[in-house]
Amino acid sequence: MVDVAGESEVIQAARRAREAAADLAVRTRGEKDRALHAIADALAADAPRILEANAEDVARAREAGTDSGIVDRLTLTADRITAIAEALRKVTTLADPVGEVVRGSTLPNGLELRQVRVPLGVVGIIYEARPNVTVDAAGLCLKSGNAVLLRGSSSARASNAALVEIMREALAGCGLPVDAIQLVPGDTHDSVKELMQARGLVDVLIPRGGAALISSVVTGSTVPVIETGVGNCHVYVDADADVDLAVELLIDSKAQRPSVCNAAETVLVHRDIAEAFLPRALAALAAAGVTVHGDEQVSGYSADVVPATEADYYKEYVSLDIAAAVVDSLDAAIAHIREYSTNHTESIITRSQAAARTFTARVDSAAVIVNASTRFTDGGEFGFGAEIGISNQKLHARGPMGLPELTSTKYIVVGDGQTKARHSSAL
Amino acid sequence: MVDVAGESEVIQAARRAREAAADLAVRTRGEKDRALHAIADALAADAPRILEANAEDVARAREAGTDSGIVDRLTLTADRITAIAEALRKVTTLADPVGEVVRGSTLPNGLELRQVRVPLGVVGIIYEARPNVTVDAAGLCLKSGNAVLLRGSSSARASNAALVEIMREALAGCGLPVDAIQLVPGDTHDSVKELMQARGLVDVLIPRGGAALISSVVTGSTVPVIETGVGNCHVYVDADADVDLAVELLIDSKAQRPSVCNAAETVLVHRDIAEAFLPRALAALAAAGVTVHGDEQVSGYSADVVPATEADYYKEYVSLDIAAAVVDSLDAAIAHIREYSTNHTESIITRSQAAARTFTARVDSAAVIVNASTRFTDGGEFGFGAEIGISNQKLHARGPMGLPELTSTKYIVVGDGQTKARHSSAL
Repeated sequence: MVDVAGESEVIQAARRAREAAADLAVRTRGEKDRALHAIADALAADAPRILEANAEDVARAREAGTDSGIVDRLTLTADRITAIAEALRKVTTLADPVGEVVRGSTLPNGLELRQVRVPLGVVGIIYEARPNVTVDAAGLCLKSGNAVLLRGSSSARASNAALVEIMREALAGCGLPVDAIQLVPGDTHDSVKELMQARGLVDVLIPRGGAALISSVVTGSTVPVIETGVGNCHVYVDADADVDLAVELLIDSKAQRPSVCNAAETVLVHRDIAEAFLPRALAALAAAGVTVHGDEQVSGYSADVVPATEADYYKEYVSLDIAAAVVDSLDAAIAHIREYSTNHTESIITRSQAAARTFTARVDSAAVIVNASTRFTDGGEFGFGAEIGISNQKLHARGPMGLPELTSTKYIVVGDGQTKARHSSAL
Repeated sequence: MVDVAGESEVIQAARRAREAAADLAVRTRGEKDRALHAIADALAADAPRILEANAEDVARAREAGTDSGIVDRLTLTADRITAIAEALRKVTTLADPVGEVVRGSTLPNGLELRQVRVPLGVVGIIYEARPNVTVDAAGLCLKSGNAVLLRGSSSARASNAALVEIMREALAGCGLPVDAIQLVPGDTHDSVKELMQARGLVDVLIPRGGAALISSVVTGSTVPVIETGVGNCHVYVDADADVDLAVELLIDSKAQRPSVCNAAETVLVHRDIAEAFLPRALAALAAAGVTVHGDEQVSGYSADVVPATEADYYKEYVSLDIAAAVVDSLDAAIAHIREYSTNHTESIITRSQAAARTFTARVDSAAVIVNASTRFTDGGEFGFGAEIGISNQKLHARGPMGLPELTSTKYIVVGDGQTKARHSSAL
């Protein structure tokens, strides 16, 4: 047995989560869905307690002179609590990924082989201000049979504490292990560090937030990490694009909601369509309040274009800014994307079947889109019903992550006495 | 552009691999299979050159007083080279995982969504003595469209250099990028360190070898790692087991080939069957040359049993040794496995449907087996046709890894002008 004396609170919490996960892994969909409804009921019933805790966080943030956008994301209202509870109820309508048979066959020697989905185990989520993530993430982990360790930001500590307390009370009321949902103890950076070193106790860490947060987790963790979110997304307007459509899709991709990871950050324009496209596109971008950071050729079409530097093409602005460049060919567009993109989402606008096929084959991003807005890379839009984040990496999960992405698999092999010595099927 | 001046040879090799991977990713199955046949032909034709290089390695190992088992694994013969070439030809018969549509649908707004398999990109393999791994791994990576960086042990350096040179010549002859197959330059531990820090250039590292190698890669790498192999596998003999069958399966699991990761290392016996099972099992194990490290109850059945310490139950012996314990119940067996297992493979021997169901549901290992030998956890036995290793982790791949496990996916979304503003499907 491992000596547990002198262990930190974080490691102790991870051990409790591990125990809870073993219990939760074998609960039925019925039990988990009933708990999700019970949590939704409890959040609605306890809204005053949540709002009181949240008011404390908001007051502290205001006193500290926090940016008003961040204060807004931190703020809960009765309506927002209702929406959070409704989102949990929606998770009950989704299929349980646990137990799904991914593949199976009867082997030549009669062994019955099934690969079935099982929970990952203990999932750590490290996230920034929004308290709704506390409940969303807990709900998705619960449904997929995982225990969750929630490490929110200290600015939301009172809100998160109230939300987690209410969720744990509801779990207890349903006979489910309360330690399936825990806040990571401690507000300091040390607690994140300990979480990142808890290999063997924590099965995966999912950082959700800005690039700095994600990068620090990715490089500092011995626990496997799923990298999420940073999106330097491209719109490529091909020589054969429909100009009206290209302008509409560019504006939607950039300006419909510029603060999100699937918003476009760079537009690349084939030189043969530059003259037809750029004057109209620049006018439409200006009308939408977008500042264009362009190369020399783009700048030639409008005095409002700010000269782009090399750094602009690497940027995820997350604001009403866009980088722009004219390219000589489809190949040059693909080469630009390979160099500068974070490989989240890239879109081509074209009427050419050949160009669309080349672009979708050769652009290696989580989502490659033809003749539609980059803004569709989203678990909700893809029909997954819920999303724990958008993976930017190639291992385990790529693109929007729904419930199946919160699972692993195991092989179940049923025989009637097969030995390797007498019944090998291997060639 | 990234400044590449002053970069190490390892990083330069990784950059070349990245370029090669982009090319290889869009090659057809036909092109890749032709290259695999060309490599197999070249290895057969150049066997004398390989044997000469191998003789150098073997002589050096003998001079250094290397263990004879390791010298044997290092040694190539004309027959072994033929077998290596035949294994490559077999890979041509396997389906190309690249391009497989994993899921797809038409969304409510008319967007056509497909999730398709794509290569991971650049795969690093860090492995020990056997030169056959050099060719096996290169072949599987080539078939799955990945560039490979091979980091073998210095004891096999001449053999590996000859094999890689021949494979690269064959690639060149087929018009495929030669840098799709590279040896990691440099023999020192520094080159492994650089490989482990090449995040962004290398997509995944797969260590194959002993526990120390795997552990050092897992903890030292910022590149994502797929942990392979260490197997502390259990056979649990349930109260309702058929004794004859239990003895036969135990002997097969332990002694059919004790040096491999799916061999059993611990046998757990339900107390109600101990008296019927243990005397026969201990006699059969003794006859097979197996030393039993048992608890007090097991020791009561034979004077040959060595008293087990706590450490024995954590051990992967990889030898003709086995730990043994009597447990009070199925639950106690599951609890023991949860504490001590590396979660590779566990087998239950039972006639009870209820016990089998509980064991397969609650034991969380890569493979959970009912009434068959632990030795079946293997890509060949599972019908995968080839295996790059057996994953011991929960993220990305678990259990035997075939060609699909060497891929990621991307979403391809085809529309006809959908914008988020006007055509959102999200609720």
